[in-house]
Amino acid sequence: MTGPRKTRRATVHDVAAAAGVSRGTVNRVLNGGYVSADARTAIEAAIAEVGYVPNRAASMLARQRSQAVGFLALEPHSLLLEDPNIGAIMLGANSALSLADHQMVSLVIDSDRDMQRVGRYLSGGFVDGAIIVSARSHDPIIRLIGEIGLPTTFVGHPPDLARDMPYVGIDNAGSALAITRRLMATGRTRIGMIAAALDRDSGADRLTGFKQALGERFDPGLVADVPLYDYTYGVKGMRALLDREPAIDGVFAASDAVAAGALEALREAGRRVPEDVGLVGFDDSSWALRTQPPLSTVHQPAREVGRTAAELVLRQIAGAEPVELSVVLDSPVVWRHSA
Amino acid sequence: MTGPRKTRRATVHDVAAAAGVSRGTVNRVLNGGYVSADARTAIEAAIAEVGYVPNRAASMLARQRSQAVGFLALEPHSLLLEDPNIGAIMLGANSALSLADHQMVSLVIDSDRDMQRVGRYLSGGFVDGAIIVSARSHDPIIRLIGEIGLPTTFVGHPPDLARDMPYVGIDNAGSALAITRRLMATGRTRIGMIAAALDRDSGADRLTGFKQALGERFDPGLVADVPLYDYTYGVKGMRALLDREPAIDGVFAASDAVAAGALEALREAGRRVPEDVGLVGFDDSSWALRTQPPLSTVHQPAREVGRTAAELVLRQIAGAEPVELSVVLDSPVVWRHSA
Repeated sequence: MTGPRKTRRATVHDVAAAAGVSRGTVNRVLNGGYVSADARTAIEAAIAEVGYVPNRAASMLARQRSQAVGFLALEPHSLLLEDPNIGAIMLGANSALSLADHQMVSLVIDSDRDMQRVGRYLSGGFVDGAIIVSARSHDPIIRLIGEIGLPTTFVGHPPDLARDMPYVGIDNAGSALAITRRLMATGRTRIGMIAAALDRDSGADRLTGFKQALGERFDPGLVADVPLYDYTYGVKGMRALLDREPAIDGVFAASDAVAAGALEALREAGRRVPEDVGLVGFDDSSWALRTQPPLSTVHQPAREVGRTAAELVLRQIAGAEPVELSVVLDSPVVWRHSA
Repeated sequence: MTGPRKTRRATVHDVAAAAGVSRGTVNRVLNGGYVSADARTAIEAAIAEVGYVPNRAASMLARQRSQAVGFLALEPHSLLLEDPNIGAIMLGANSALSLADHQMVSLVIDSDRDMQRVGRYLSGGFVDGAIIVSARSHDPIIRLIGEIGLPTTFVGHPPDLARDMPYVGIDNAGSALAITRRLMATGRTRIGMIAAALDRDSGADRLTGFKQALGERFDPGLVADVPLYDYTYGVKGMRALLDREPAIDGVFAASDAVAAGALEALREAGRRVPEDVGLVGFDDSSWALRTQPPLSTVHQPAREVGRTAAELVLRQIAGAEPVELSVVLDSPVVWRHSA
C-alpha cells in the first residue's frame, strides 16, 4: 500500500523483512502485542537494526478501546438471504460479546465500495476486533486486517493470507466422510455430490471427505460443482446430475439449502426421496426440518460457533497471543428421513 | 431517566413542557435542528422562559459526524432466524448508505443487557442516525431515540411514542383486504386467518384488512392468534383452526413463514392445497417460492423498503425535517398456486 518514497525512511515492511515475519505480526507488536516471545524478540531487534520509528500518535489511537467488535459476513447475498446459520452465529457472537459488555456491530460488504469503506472503518479505531465469516483469499479485507493487526477470529478456516489467525470451525472433511459412509451403508450404489463453494475451505473439504468415503468407487462424473451454497444452485446441480446419470440413487448436497433445491429438482423429475434417491445435506439449519421429508444432515453448532468466535476475539483484545487459540467444534451426523 | 434533583436547574423536560412539544423535538433543535418553524419558535421562546442552558460540550459532540447509521432489528430471534425479508431490507439500506459513503452498522438487541448497551452506543455519537425494524411501544429504545433526537426512520409504522418520526411501510390493511377478497373469489366459504404479532401495527392491520374483506361473514372463531411471524407458530395456528373448524377451506396466513408452517399442518391432516384448502400468505419472501405449491401472497418490496429507509435517514442527517417524509410503497398481490 506504500508507494516508492524519495526520502527513504524505515517502514513496517523493512522491520518485517529484517525480522523474517509478516507485516501483520510487526503491527501486532506495535499495537499492543500478542505474538510469540521469539517473534517479539526478533521484531524488537529488527526495529533497532533498521532504525524504525513508530508513529506514536497512530499507535496511541490504536490502543484506545471502542468496546465494539465488528461482525463481517463476506458473502452477503448468499449469507443474508439464504443461510439461516448466519443468524444463529450472529446471535451466539452477540451473546458472548454482550456478557463482556462489548457492542457487536455487523458490517455488510456487498460491493468494492463497501469493501473500501469497511476497511477504513476497521482501521479507524471504531472496533477493537473482528469476527469474519466466509472469507476467501482474494478478499482485500484479509490483507488489511493483517496490516492493521486487528484482533480477529475467522469462522471457518482462514484463507492463506491469514493462516496465523485463530479460527472456529468444524471438521468439514471428517463430517462429509461420515455422512457419505452412512449414505453408502443404506445400500446406494450410484452416489453423486452437489459440491458448492470450492473456492472456500469448507466447500473444498466437504468434497475431499466425500472422495475419501467413496475411495475407488469415486466417479468425478458424478460431482456437480456450483458456486454458492444456495437453493437455486441446488436445483441446477441436481438437474445436471440427473442428466449425466439417470440411475443416480444417492446424493450428498454440500449444504441443506442446496439439498432443499435438489429435492425440488428430484420431485420435478418424478423421483421419490428416500425411496428412489437417498439425499443428505450439511448444516442442520432450519432448512433441514422444513423439507419434506426432513433432511439427514451434519449438525453445525452455529450458536456455539458464534459464541466461541467472540470469546477468541475478546481473549486477543485482552492480550492473548492468537497462536493456538483455534477451536474445532463437534459436528455430528443427524439421521432423519431423506436417506 | 433523570432522577429528582436538589438544586433545581431547568432541563429539556421543562423546555418541552413550556413549548408544548416532546423532549425529542427539543433535543432535535438543540442537536442541529430539523423541526417545523412553528416548533422552533416555540422552543426558542421556551428556552428563554425557563432559563435553560444547554450542555454545549454534549451538543458539540452530538454534532460530530460518525458517517455511520445504525440498523436495529428489535426482534432478533424471529427476524434473524426466520424472516428472509430482513436480509433484503439490510442489503437495500446498505446500498443506499454506501452510495452516500455512510457505514451501516447493524446492532442486535437480544436481551435487556443489549438494550442498555445499544442505548449507550446510540447516544454516544457512534452513529448519526438509525433505521429501526419491528419496533413496539414497550421497547425502551424508542423513548431513548426521542430523547437524544437521533435522526431515525422506522420500517413499518412507528409505535405511539414515536408518531412524529418518519417511516417506510406498506398498506398492510389494504393488501390484506385485497388478498382476502381474491381468496374469497375462488369460491371458498369457510375462510380463517392465522393472525400473528397483533402487538405490532403490521400484524393488527393485516387482521383489520381480513375482517373488512369478510364483512358480515367474518367469524372470530376462525381467527387463530399467534405471537410471532414464524414457521412453528404457523404449524400450531393451523392445527388450532383445523380443530375448531374441520370444514375450513380457505386460510390467510399473516406471513409466508406462517403459511409454510400452515402447509405442513395441512399436509399432516391430509388436506390438499389448493384442492381442499386455499392458502395465502404475506411478504413474498423466499418462503413463497419454496413451498410446494408456491404461495399466493402479497409482495413486499423489501430492498426498496431498506433503500428508502436509508434515504430518509440521510435526508434528516442533512437537515430535512422529519415531518411528512414517510413513504408508503406498493405491495401488490402475487397469485401463484396455493389458492
